[in-house]
Amino acid sequence: MQPTPPSDFARLRRKPQRGAYDQATIHAILDAAPFCHVGHVIQGRPVVIPTFHWRHGDTVFWHGSSASRMIRANAAGGEVCLTVSLLDAWVLARTSFNHSANYRSVMCFGVPSLVDDPTEKLAAMRGFVERLFPGRWETLRPPTEQEVKATAILSLPLTEASAKLRSGPPGDDPEDRDWPVWAGTLPLRLVGDAPVPDDDVQPGQEPPATPFAG
Amino acid sequence: MQPTPPSDFARLRRKPQRGAYDQATIHAILDAAPFCHVGHVIQGRPVVIPTFHWRHGDTVFWHGSSASRMIRANAAGGEVCLTVSLLDAWVLARTSFNHSANYRSVMCFGVPSLVDDPTEKLAAMRGFVERLFPGRWETLRPPTEQEVKATAILSLPLTEASAKLRSGPPGDDPEDRDWPVWAGTLPLRLVGDAPVPDDDVQPGQEPPATPFAG
Repeated sequence: MQPTPPSDFARLRRKPQRGAYDQATIHAILDAAPFCHVGHVIQGRPVVIPTFHWRHGDTVFWHGSSASRMIRANAAGGEVCLTVSLLDAWVLARTSFNHSANYRSVMCFGVPSLVDDPTEKLAAMRGFVERLFPGRWETLRPPTEQEVKATAILSLPLTEASAKLRSGPPGDDPEDRDWPVWAGTLPLRLVGDAPVPDDDVQPGQEPPATPFAG
Repeated sequence: MQPTPPSDFARLRRKPQRGAYDQATIHAILDAAPFCHVGHVIQGRPVVIPTFHWRHGDTVFWHGSSASRMIRANAAGGEVCLTVSLLDAWVLARTSFNHSANYRSVMCFGVPSLVDDPTEKLAAMRGFVERLFPGRWETLRPPTEQEVKATAILSLPLTEASAKLRSGPPGDDPEDRDWPVWAGTLPLRLVGDAPVPDDDVQPGQEPPATPFAG
């Protein structure tokens, strides 16, 4: 449990009442997000790259190609900021200033490690697939040594992380509440459309459930 | 039109066949994304913050609080990387290595400017609201001078931007195609659930359409 900010850098400055630092909240948001954005400093410049992440215990993992700039920056010991954000609803107020959104987000800071032991890497790859498609790993053509080599996996302990959340109705000032306009929330949700089978899929093979579709 | 990379830094290294540098593609993806992640370098460390953006012509705008670290970092002339990412489908292959996703993403690099002229800022705020809720601006309680001051808006010309896209079926190797497992794509889409009116909304006021709900 981290009831207080794990570092001054990770402490929320804006709207600190929306902040949370406890492990359960941070884990739940990481687990609910289909993908993440990882920020690096490359040649002194910020670079933000979308990729897929997963969590095991108090560690977050993400995936890249062994040949990517992102992975090479991390291999050089660079720090990252891994952020996930879920937009739950638009929040419509009576004045533009009080418009907002209901959301859940997490920021994780630190220096990641490359998972380079082949056994650990294979276990992590399995964790990635099983997070999305439980039971699928065993049904796939097993990875070759070359495929394992070409996959890069990074791990970051969740030692410097924070969550930020908003929920509920708009926060109009009392004197604005009778302004004659609709106000409230417009919830958003991800859904899965019908699976599209590839050519050559054999009869009897069924698609798994769509991850993160509500 | 930018048929070639606008800079070496913005050039895609990994899977360059998925890259696009033309204005129409970049604009369309920015317009289709509900929100963005902005990366900054603060005290030498990467910081990735989700926020809302909108586009006007060949400029992208985003929104923050005048008091935020993010805005202060930008006010100091710091460079950003603004990234938007849309996850369109999970792509399931016959081997873990060829699993992928269909997506559309854009990265925009540069040094943003604070929109500080009050008239320009008001016009930008209007653009933000109208992007999401066409016609709503005129129905709201007009912003006060203090509300305009407390809102920070940043602008970035799209001079160093790139897009990356994947679509279509999995890319299994020919020798894997008869592996007995389901393969194909699982499309994802945002939908809007029923609007939740705030207390005190007057009879006859109707909610707008939910932005980005398909």
